[in-house]
Amino acid sequence: MPDKTPDQPRIAGVSFSLYPMCDNFVDLILSAIKKVDSSKVWMKTDRVSTIVRGRIPHIFDVTQAAFLEIAKTGEHVVYSATFSVGCPGDTEGHAYMDADEKTLNRELIEAVDQNLSAKFALYPMGGGNYMDPIYEQIEAMKDHGVDVELTHYETMLEGAAHNIFNGLQSVLQAMEDAGSSHTVMAVTLSANSPSA
Amino acid sequence: MPDKTPDQPRIAGVSFSLYPMCDNFVDLILSAIKKVDSSKVWMKTDRVSTIVRGRIPHIFDVTQAAFLEIAKTGEHVVYSATFSVGCPGDTEGHAYMDADEKTLNRELIEAVDQNLSAKFALYPMGGGNYMDPIYEQIEAMKDHGVDVELTHYETMLEGAAHNIFNGLQSVLQAMEDAGSSHTVMAVTLSANSPSA
Repeated sequence: MPDKTPDQPRIAGVSFSLYPMCDNFVDLILSAIKKVDSSKVWMKTDRVSTIVRGRIPHIFDVTQAAFLEIAKTGEHVVYSATFSVGCPGDTEGHAYMDADEKTLNRELIEAVDQNLSAKFALYPMGGGNYMDPIYEQIEAMKDHGVDVELTHYETMLEGAAHNIFNGLQSVLQAMEDAGSSHTVMAVTLSANSPSA
Repeated sequence: MPDKTPDQPRIAGVSFSLYPMCDNFVDLILSAIKKVDSSKVWMKTDRVSTIVRGRIPHIFDVTQAAFLEIAKTGEHVVYSATFSVGCPGDTEGHAYMDADEKTLNRELIEAVDQNLSAKFALYPMGGGNYMDPIYEQIEAMKDHGVDVELTHYETMLEGAAHNIFNGLQSVLQAMEDAGSSHTVMAVTLSANSPSA
């Protein structure tokens, strides 16, 4: 079965974790996960992170909503995620690709006004000219109203959560639309940091 | 100036963060950083993470020691890191490459007996056969007494902190010895997790 046809996008996925820096971290995580509607994604938590797989809009929607549910408490919380599309051997869970594009958690997300400090890195795998799409996507991030600053190994972002998530989702979608065979994107988002 | 000569290894670096899941996270981080001898690395903290750059043994030594200083308190703490060697444009800080290989924090590290759940992913950039070295290095990890389990997008590890850090350092060194032009390795280490 081919991974991609003109009518069917490829399955995308993310290994993500939420790190609330407070004593009641377990309650905050469980309560956030419970409030989020994850019925359009494949989801599994292991000892280190949670894997969420499905269509690109849904994996962003679900993880963004869970993160903002914790961020809105005012506690310092970090969202750490590795997105992947086209990873060789990644096939399980294709059923979720029949879901339509309508995201399920916009209400939760839009209720939270949150500034973030962030870093992201793009890893286009398997090609020799991989730096060109990286620089293009760093430039494209600026169109989303996000402050962009180059630093070692990653790109630093500063701005509203909605803008940063929109920008990151656009980066992954743009790589996919451009025909990248295997794209990895690493993201760290920090809310309510005392060092901000 | 060439990045690499037969006598001089290339500068390696890591963008890393420590996430203690407790109310006194700031004190734990500051106190750990203070105890660690980082005189053989270039180090800079920004709003999202800390960049540590220098020779491979030292970037592992410094970050491992800081992590274990927090882990030994018994609090749940996560070490999240992206290692990089050969990133185009990465030149600043070459002075630290004159340091010898003697690591400075072995005493701190060896005093802590800690089990970890972990994930790692290797991203050899710029080449078409990038999956081969990934599978080789996943196999090599087993030689370090670490339990290895395949999962989506990353490889799960379980074992003693010393074994896991030795394994990860060996992976990065092996990629460098094999002549990889640009290697990225993402690592998440979890200590004292209530879900373990």
